[in-house]
Amino acid sequence: MDTKNEMGLPKASDATAQTYRNFPMVPRVVFGRGSFDQLGGILLPKRRHSDAPFIFLVDDVFEGTDVVSRIPIIFNDQIVFISADEEPKTSQVDTLVQEILAEYTEIPSGIVGIGGGTLLDLAKAVSIMLTNKGGSAAYQGWDLVQKPSIYHVGIPTISGTGAEVSRTTVLLGPEKKLGINSDYTTFDQVILDPNLTKGVCKEQWFYTGMDCFIHCIESLNGTYLNAFSQSYGEKALELCKEVYLGDLTSEESRDKLMMASWHGGMSIAYSQVGVAHAMSYGLGYVLGVKHGIGNCLVFQHLEEFYPEGVKLFNQMKEKQGVILPQNICTGLSDKDFDTMIEVAMAMQPLWENALGADWRSIVTPEKLRFLYEKI
Amino acid sequence: MDTKNEMGLPKASDATAQTYRNFPMVPRVVFGRGSFDQLGGILLPKRRHSDAPFIFLVDDVFEGTDVVSRIPIIFNDQIVFISADEEPKTSQVDTLVQEILAEYTEIPSGIVGIGGGTLLDLAKAVSIMLTNKGGSAAYQGWDLVQKPSIYHVGIPTISGTGAEVSRTTVLLGPEKKLGINSDYTTFDQVILDPNLTKGVCKEQWFYTGMDCFIHCIESLNGTYLNAFSQSYGEKALELCKEVYLGDLTSEESRDKLMMASWHGGMSIAYSQVGVAHAMSYGLGYVLGVKHGIGNCLVFQHLEEFYPEGVKLFNQMKEKQGVILPQNICTGLSDKDFDTMIEVAMAMQPLWENALGADWRSIVTPEKLRFLYEKI
Repeated sequence: MDTKNEMGLPKASDATAQTYRNFPMVPRVVFGRGSFDQLGGILLPKRRHSDAPFIFLVDDVFEGTDVVSRIPIIFNDQIVFISADEEPKTSQVDTLVQEILAEYTEIPSGIVGIGGGTLLDLAKAVSIMLTNKGGSAAYQGWDLVQKPSIYHVGIPTISGTGAEVSRTTVLLGPEKKLGINSDYTTFDQVILDPNLTKGVCKEQWFYTGMDCFIHCIESLNGTYLNAFSQSYGEKALELCKEVYLGDLTSEESRDKLMMASWHGGMSIAYSQVGVAHAMSYGLGYVLGVKHGIGNCLVFQHLEEFYPEGVKLFNQMKEKQGVILPQNICTGLSDKDFDTMIEVAMAMQPLWENALGADWRSIVTPEKLRFLYEKI
Repeated sequence: MDTKNEMGLPKASDATAQTYRNFPMVPRVVFGRGSFDQLGGILLPKRRHSDAPFIFLVDDVFEGTDVVSRIPIIFNDQIVFISADEEPKTSQVDTLVQEILAEYTEIPSGIVGIGGGTLLDLAKAVSIMLTNKGGSAAYQGWDLVQKPSIYHVGIPTISGTGAEVSRTTVLLGPEKKLGINSDYTTFDQVILDPNLTKGVCKEQWFYTGMDCFIHCIESLNGTYLNAFSQSYGEKALELCKEVYLGDLTSEESRDKLMMASWHGGMSIAYSQVGVAHAMSYGLGYVLGVKHGIGNCLVFQHLEEFYPEGVKLFNQMKEKQGVILPQNICTGLSDKDFDTMIEVAMAMQPLWENALGADWRSIVTPEKLRFLYEKI
């Protein structure tokens, strides 16, 4: 189980004294409404030759839509539609890689992920596994990737996860859910086209945006922060407030949420999440609750830890008219609760970031049971 | 003369409809007090072999200081001390390159610039000219560089210019002051160590920080802005306010100004400067006034264009006890004034960004003469 930070980086305090993480940034980014149409021009110089295709991994919600018709397919390029209903798996990555290797005589020129966090993470993982031997599960961890990935492009179509800037790809493996964290994971190119987020349904828009918001609250109130991450986190938080509490036009709102996700992802460089994420892991482990909504379900009850943040969250929820599911934990057995609590309490760095080294004096199994029962 | 934006990128409106700049970001960054000491470890894997040195271009204010003793010199590496009293020149770049090529049998493993904007710009230019033929003046312009530069690292020791993140290196050539703007100009690695800015004198600290502040005011109030640049510009501006109007510790202040410069530099991706920079070019051209102080001298009189910004500027100036030189333009001839006005008015994109397409109805030679006479 992942006891490092949310985006898969070792926590800042793992570093020895005076050693700071050398953070890999996405080396190329385009931002703009309609910038998706620049994809063909961007890929052209990256095409090694006509037998080395681009593989487009695309969220299957776009099947038959205008977005797909605008994908710049030439030569033997291929579009692969993938459902984002479930979290990305190591087996899924391995199958994709095997299919690509079987179908083409050449390693592809590159992989393009078009979708939310699931599709972006799959694109990252496939680009790594096309040059590294064995199964992807062997690379879950930190800096286990030996060879550079192939060129890969991330095009988010929903804002909030920060997957477009992170150096991890979180995969569900046979034994663990853990990221492939490496310098080769980060995208070589990102296209930020707010227009692509037009079709996102309200609940998804809210939950994924709250992933960013809650992340910011946790990292800004944590003990691991430095000025680099603080500046990104503060800006992401401010943008979330504008989006969910302000009176923006739809266009402005999409623009700003895309930037909130971007800055929120950058803020992870030298920060860590906290209580909501730790408890959300427990909820996800036992009940399969997905990341965004899981964070929301937990966070609403964390006034004690994040009084200002929870107040803001409730204002946002109310203003947006989002009603969270209730009684999620009703009917769970004592054993289920114990497992949830155990999973949550195992996330030591998150608790330490949130509450300091002495966190065990504040967070007890009884307290977590009390909180989970509210959900 | 440079009629494009301050950091040397073609203005956003040069783009055709629906085409947005594919912005190159620094692919690696370390932030942290004392992170300078990680330089040796960062350079090690980039050393091609023992005959391919690293060349460290270092502001000569550091000669004999602790900073120099911490530079990780091995093999045939070399430290070159350079004065930042004057702006970097194409002839200076060419001489440095010739000396390096004459002294070594191998192209260096890389160039490391340690200093303010002048040293950072020199490091960028030398890294380009070690692989591209002819003199550097031939590459002043946009995307004229044909071959990738060698690996180069930027380590700012004064905050505000944004040179650490920009894709230009502004050089004074035989005929023009213009940047070498290219995707190969951007640093491969940046180390942000706020401790390195400890020794900066108050005036320099103020003027260089105001370069960032004024830049933000101009771009945020301009017509070219989009949400990407806005978010970076707003954060940079907020950090400037904290630094110059807040009550931070020295350490916090150095941290935050370094991040202000970083975000301010990023904000240029899709924005443009305005009135102060246009007029400052005129001042610099006729009187040789340097960039940071020139912007301040002009900006204080621009209430009409930037009422809130000038108010903030005056508060900062007062709080920091900085007294600007006066009567700079006293005794100038009519011809001098005409030249200044001509130079300023030639900066069309800046005026257009500030005041819209109809800017000539607002800014007349008489008005500029009136403003210059105040300085």
